[in-house]
Amino acid sequence: MPRVALGIAYEGSEWKGWQTQPSGLTVQDQLERALGQFLAQPVDTVCAGRTDAGVHAFAQVVHLDTTAQRTEESWVRGLNALLPRSIAIQWARSVSDDFHARFAAGARTYVYLLRTERVRAPLVRGRMGWTHYPLDLDMMRAAANCLLGEHDFSSFRSSECQAASPVRTLSALDIQRNGDFFLFTFTANAFLHHMVRNLMGALLLVGRGRKPVEWVSEVLMACDRRRAAATFAPDGLYLASVDYPERFGLPVVDAHQALFSATGLCFPGA
Amino acid sequence: MPRVALGIAYEGSEWKGWQTQPSGLTVQDQLERALGQFLAQPVDTVCAGRTDAGVHAFAQVVHLDTTAQRTEESWVRGLNALLPRSIAIQWARSVSDDFHARFAAGARTYVYLLRTERVRAPLVRGRMGWTHYPLDLDMMRAAANCLLGEHDFSSFRSSECQAASPVRTLSALDIQRNGDFFLFTFTANAFLHHMVRNLMGALLLVGRGRKPVEWVSEVLMACDRRRAAATFAPDGLYLASVDYPERFGLPVVDAHQALFSATGLCFPGA
Repeated sequence: MPRVALGIAYEGSEWKGWQTQPSGLTVQDQLERALGQFLAQPVDTVCAGRTDAGVHAFAQVVHLDTTAQRTEESWVRGLNALLPRSIAIQWARSVSDDFHARFAAGARTYVYLLRTERVRAPLVRGRMGWTHYPLDLDMMRAAANCLLGEHDFSSFRSSECQAASPVRTLSALDIQRNGDFFLFTFTANAFLHHMVRNLMGALLLVGRGRKPVEWVSEVLMACDRRRAAATFAPDGLYLASVDYPERFGLPVVDAHQALFSATGLCFPGA
Repeated sequence: MPRVALGIAYEGSEWKGWQTQPSGLTVQDQLERALGQFLAQPVDTVCAGRTDAGVHAFAQVVHLDTTAQRTEESWVRGLNALLPRSIAIQWARSVSDDFHARFAAGARTYVYLLRTERVRAPLVRGRMGWTHYPLDLDMMRAAANCLLGEHDFSSFRSSECQAASPVRTLSALDIQRNGDFFLFTFTANAFLHHMVRNLMGALLLVGRGRKPVEWVSEVLMACDRRRAAATFAPDGLYLASVDYPERFGLPVVDAHQALFSATGLCFPGA
């Protein structure tokens, strides 16, 4: 059956995460409901990254199989007319049947947006994390360097994580600052459950001066979740881009381009 | 009775505008409810600009009279603990009793954020206007110049406007672009009801090439609402700053600083 890939942006604040639930209040449920109406047949979807409740995406990637023939323009316009305002298809492509949104992905990039200010900011609520502590950028960058490479990330893994192995390769962890705003960019072959939010918790303890840089390495080596910091809020977390082999012909968008295109935010140096 | 001024930021999407209504679903109702709890007595407030349903503010200014003594820090923290997440006090100051949030204001600045893209963007929904037409920046700037100065703005005034005179002085109308995003900045001594949204409607017709630059002058001179364009969406509209005489000692924040501080957005050249 012909396979179609979709790029999807969503504001996750009002949804109980990606994965389908009996409540129907997940992004997958909303997408499959819209697909069912659009194609007049039930459709199952597979996504690149199952985001948690409250987590957003610039370009989640999904595939589905259907005999229905639609133009790329029609997929986008037709589905967007049926989706809630907080979810929108960004692009659609016909793909070969060896494409798989989850297993063909080479790397995922998440970004975390954070605002550090004394007073809370209603206009970014739910879409940026918030701390009222001043943060030391150099200390956080030094801590980030300790985390790069292939490691057992058990210390930063939720107890509910279902992955077969806790080993992941974190290929980039970049931190940029613009005034009171911080942008954290994480790239890995894949992420464990709550991994980015747990890493954020650790980086912020270092940034606040509560823990020294070396503590992050100690926590990593301990392979023990109880040694790490609390899981940080989902608010500022975005699935920013997913890399696939070129032969599938999907749109290539850099994570920071995707951030700008979806929000208008840009960070000098990022 | 001692007078206090408050600076307030809000995300207006979920509220029926500033001004109190029997429904209680306005920003003023929420603020006065929080003030009533905080001071244990009913309080009336007066604001600088009564924003419409769906319109936002970085720093609406309000004054109120009370015998209650609180520190500036206590006003901010105490009220923010009682306000919904979409409304937050940014600062508080004791002011002399000749201060008046509405009548002492020398000028108001509104900004309008707009995204021009083929596909809608869930992550800025309700907080940016949207058009899928490409816009010509130079044409819009030329049209903006025709509107500067003191004019009878009847053509850009809602039929429900209660102002005694339709004459206003538009001292600045600046337009900046960053990729697919546009920032319109309007400064005037005061604004008529729907004036910014009606001016936006006209500027966008010129930007799309549907009307020539001179048409804006013709509409202005006609002093006839039926000659102008449709009222544009409230989504991207923000009360950005209000100017008061220096002697009142209120925080001075430029509109574009306020935009950045509240949202992280910055426009090159603005």
